[in-house]
Amino acid sequence: MALLTRIKGPRDLDRLTPEELDQLASEIRTFLVDEVSKTGGHLGPNLGVVELTIALHRVFESPKDKVLWDTGHQSYVHKLLTGRQDFTRLKMKGGLSGYPARAESEHDIIENSHASTVLGWADGLAKANQVLGKDDAVVAVIGDGALTGGMAWEALNNIAVAKDRPLVIVVNDNERSYAPTIGGLANHLATLRTTDGYERFLAKGKDLLERTPVVGRPLYDTLHGAKKGLKDFIAPQGMFEDLGIKYVGPIDGHDIEALESALQRAKRFGGPVIVHCLTEKGRGYQPALADEADRFHAVGKIHPDTGLPIASSGVDWTSVFGEEMVKLGKERKDIVAITAAMLQPVGLDRFAKAFPDRVYDVGIAEQHGAVSAAGLATGGLHPVFAVYATFLNRAFDQVLMDVALHKCGVTFVLDRAGVTGTDGASHNGMWDMSILQVVPTLRIAAPRDADQVRAQLREAVQVEDAPTVVRFSKGAVGPAVKAVGKVGGMDVLRRPTADAARPDVLLVSIGALAPMCLEIADLLDAQGISSTVVDPRWVKPVDEAMAPLAEQHRVVVTVEDNSRAGGVGSAVAQALRDAGVDVPLRDFGIPPVFLDHASRKEVMAEIGLTAPDIARQVTGLVAKLDGRLESATAEVARD
Amino acid sequence: MALLTRIKGPRDLDRLTPEELDQLASEIRTFLVDEVSKTGGHLGPNLGVVELTIALHRVFESPKDKVLWDTGHQSYVHKLLTGRQDFTRLKMKGGLSGYPARAESEHDIIENSHASTVLGWADGLAKANQVLGKDDAVVAVIGDGALTGGMAWEALNNIAVAKDRPLVIVVNDNERSYAPTIGGLANHLATLRTTDGYERFLAKGKDLLERTPVVGRPLYDTLHGAKKGLKDFIAPQGMFEDLGIKYVGPIDGHDIEALESALQRAKRFGGPVIVHCLTEKGRGYQPALADEADRFHAVGKIHPDTGLPIASSGVDWTSVFGEEMVKLGKERKDIVAITAAMLQPVGLDRFAKAFPDRVYDVGIAEQHGAVSAAGLATGGLHPVFAVYATFLNRAFDQVLMDVALHKCGVTFVLDRAGVTGTDGASHNGMWDMSILQVVPTLRIAAPRDADQVRAQLREAVQVEDAPTVVRFSKGAVGPAVKAVGKVGGMDVLRRPTADAARPDVLLVSIGALAPMCLEIADLLDAQGISSTVVDPRWVKPVDEAMAPLAEQHRVVVTVEDNSRAGGVGSAVAQALRDAGVDVPLRDFGIPPVFLDHASRKEVMAEIGLTAPDIARQVTGLVAKLDGRLESATAEVARD
Repeated sequence: MALLTRIKGPRDLDRLTPEELDQLASEIRTFLVDEVSKTGGHLGPNLGVVELTIALHRVFESPKDKVLWDTGHQSYVHKLLTGRQDFTRLKMKGGLSGYPARAESEHDIIENSHASTVLGWADGLAKANQVLGKDDAVVAVIGDGALTGGMAWEALNNIAVAKDRPLVIVVNDNERSYAPTIGGLANHLATLRTTDGYERFLAKGKDLLERTPVVGRPLYDTLHGAKKGLKDFIAPQGMFEDLGIKYVGPIDGHDIEALESALQRAKRFGGPVIVHCLTEKGRGYQPALADEADRFHAVGKIHPDTGLPIASSGVDWTSVFGEEMVKLGKERKDIVAITAAMLQPVGLDRFAKAFPDRVYDVGIAEQHGAVSAAGLATGGLHPVFAVYATFLNRAFDQVLMDVALHKCGVTFVLDRAGVTGTDGASHNGMWDMSILQVVPTLRIAAPRDADQVRAQLREAVQVEDAPTVVRFSKGAVGPAVKAVGKVGGMDVLRRPTADAARPDVLLVSIGALAPMCLEIADLLDAQGISSTVVDPRWVKPVDEAMAPLAEQHRVVVTVEDNSRAGGVGSAVAQALRDAGVDVPLRDFGIPPVFLDHASRKEVMAEIGLTAPDIARQVTGLVAKLDGRLESATAEVARD
Repeated sequence: MALLTRIKGPRDLDRLTPEELDQLASEIRTFLVDEVSKTGGHLGPNLGVVELTIALHRVFESPKDKVLWDTGHQSYVHKLLTGRQDFTRLKMKGGLSGYPARAESEHDIIENSHASTVLGWADGLAKANQVLGKDDAVVAVIGDGALTGGMAWEALNNIAVAKDRPLVIVVNDNERSYAPTIGGLANHLATLRTTDGYERFLAKGKDLLERTPVVGRPLYDTLHGAKKGLKDFIAPQGMFEDLGIKYVGPIDGHDIEALESALQRAKRFGGPVIVHCLTEKGRGYQPALADEADRFHAVGKIHPDTGLPIASSGVDWTSVFGEEMVKLGKERKDIVAITAAMLQPVGLDRFAKAFPDRVYDVGIAEQHGAVSAAGLATGGLHPVFAVYATFLNRAFDQVLMDVALHKCGVTFVLDRAGVTGTDGASHNGMWDMSILQVVPTLRIAAPRDADQVRAQLREAVQVEDAPTVVRFSKGAVGPAVKAVGKVGGMDVLRRPTADAARPDVLLVSIGALAPMCLEIADLLDAQGISSTVVDPRWVKPVDEAMAPLAEQHRVVVTVEDNSRAGGVGSAVAQALRDAGVDVPLRDFGIPPVFLDHASRKEVMAEIGLTAPDIARQVTGLVAKLDGRLESATAEVARD
């Protein structure tokens, strides 16, 4: 690491020779494999952008020039070149974020991890430069996968018209989203990849035509006049130029000199320009290249030489869902599956193998996932759209207006719901149970264990006239939590131990927090406070048995792994109000703030979503009620 | 209307002669102008699609074949040809919907009015056909404006890859969204419009080259081999064909014979195909054609000959905002404005005239509106994005992840918030104050009158590190409602008349419902129930003075023009719980259901959002509390 450790900032790159740059690239790859194998992280994407990042920082002057990374998990090299080389606590509390982070460095501008945003950001920054008369360059790096997202299209359409507004778009084309990129655009990019660039061909073509003087010259002129046509004939780079964006490429994304030359031209161009760079995900790391499925997109801790995981965790929520989908697929021919470029992470790979004609990868395009699901349902099928909870935000309008309004039987399976932790603010799945509350007819299941995932998925796909949602956590699924009874449609997980006529607390446990709620009940018991624990299973709509049950208790406590704002607790509180049941209620959940990266356990402790914290607060509330009751009694007695 | 009245369904079109078809088109135009001028409605778009709709229904067999209309306000002609010719109560309660409506006809498939959805629907339906082995045609009609939306791109990218999945896309290109369509795509379509089609040119080109035998033939072969290149040389239809979608066009959208011929070819093609039709918005109606601004996109009641409005309403919320924006623009050079293809409807036309370099029409692209606003703010400006409340759904993720997470000072102005009425389920702005509750740091202003619109807009643009929202109703703004005092940041609109130590009711009035809340207070007074009426002005976050004020009352009642689910009432209830204030609360608002079209007043009556309804319920609650208190007192006294 002789060279790398000397790089304190981008300008330290300026005086390196071509040979030293190659050595630096090699050192960076070694560093990434060594360090990320210890902590886990996005290995494959970063191995692919080593040379590109070096070239970007040599050509542009960050932070005056704004270098923007889409879906920021490809920013590790950028971090290394901008003064951040301590990767020992990558993604851990207090350590480096797995994405750009404005708190870490002035070189970081966008820090969220939702894809396809960067062109919109760039358009805004370029417009601001224009209004304020600044000449800072704006450079947006976007993957071919992210170009499949609608936001990218909306931005391209806007960027294209401003011929005098400089903006450099670097397409980092590794032919993959998470999995290989799909769609017409991917095919178009493939054509571009295998064709020589316009500039080289222009010379060749002119030469050829001039050697045929009779018709050659006039034909050349005609062709040249039909400029767009000529360009397309030579290199079918049509799409971008048709929109009005200058195209440069394709460029070998691992050739620093070629990259610098192209980026320099783009920088000087003075209008919107696309630099099409071909890179290889997992470049230089044999285990990654050998893994056709995902090229080590994101890894846990691995052995650096073999790439094999060091510790394997237990059965996770995702695979419980994935296996049940295969069974359902066999039983019902009308069930089809949808993924937004994440077949394997959402557990649909097995279903895809079993039923290749009944699975649709729509690209990084959650809106299309949802609206095409409405079409599939209307056409007579039952689609199951599996997606990370946080990414469903993108499809809110489609869930509401296309699926629910049109009474379509579509099941949304939300993986990575609740606090996910190490990926930081934008990966937590903490919004879904709030925003979906407003969607009429939609039903939400929050299974508490593997058995419930299977059972509730089956219940969900039975609903043919409304959207259903099944949401579960990230990682290993806990042990089975047995019901001891039923109240309405709700599972009773625990009855009060004391034989109180009116037990103190009704604990409403949502999803994976069931073991925590049982622990809270134990802690309350130790304080002489009796409680009933119920799991509503379906948290929207609120079960009709909830209000009568609440009325039999002195306090209602809800515990959910979701934003407190407008969440399940709020919905239960409203249902009680509507039923005229004014029992005091306390709703525990995630506070409406953005959560810094840390382990799930650390985050939960920080926000007070732990059994001891909640038990303490409930104990305080019960004591207060006791006090109030006593003083009220005393007061009335005095009268 | 001799011909039109004989058309009971699409098949009645089959036996008409070309002359009769032209006569029918003419009758339909007369009908539309006569009828829509009486009721109001979307006149311009429907005048543009008369011939196109006739041709579609002659070529395809609806309802077996699925004819889908994007942004369904262009479906009036479709209604006329599918058995619905009573337009007397268009958009009125019990009358025809202004959009397709599945309850009206089996010929209607998609009924929402949010743009750019149709290609996604079509993709889903086509996939279902493929899985189920059906050969029904799927035909999607989409405007050039709607193609600027990201959903359209996501769909095209998916549709393009399925070469064996028939799907006909009809691009209804009238060069307009609401206003003229913007962006690179619009420019590309313009190029297509002025170029002969591929098929005609292919013949010409071959002919030309074959007449130059020396190099002609080999060059032709080369060109022909580079098939895409040749096509682009001849007709730069690049973009769609580059993606892999067969292109047919451009077709004169007012020539029924040409349309039928193109649609027949498209129907037989057997894969995804685009038919590019050129139409004229407002066709055949002079007042519409003469109005360059919007071609009578949507009208109120007008005089059919002059096109002049019959009754003009008072000052509306939109123009109060629009005027204040011009003032702000003069005072602050850093204020810029954004619209998603609705410059005039959202009141930004005056700002655009005054500051043409500081306004951005991003197309029908709310996602881009929000994310580019984040870029503009980061670049040093303060963007104001004015958009219909219901369309903000599309940008939820961008408001959360791009604007709020990145601490950007962006102001969202939500017009047409609350019950809008006649446009039906998808146009009511009833979701915003619920889904936005989860967005950390975001602040929501709900101004109650014109003065407050001005004042709160000014307060909003002062916030430079978080998103702000100003939301107001559709239509005429009511009279000023003066504050009689302040509690915290909240305006007191009315104090209890009785000098009760503890007044009965705290009425929390949200936005435009202030007059209704004052009326409720009067009605309660008449029942001997005293109340305080406050307007929080900023409804998120809940004012810190709310809980202490609530504690001084026996009941809290919130009234909002927004979904009850997770709305302001829920947020107030949670704030009280968090403060340990367990005063009973009742939250009134819009029930979480889809609302049928009717006037705003009729809808409000139907959902019980009227002063008498609410006063009755509050009276009942207070009586119940009195009863409870009495029985509790009696019980304790007995002990």
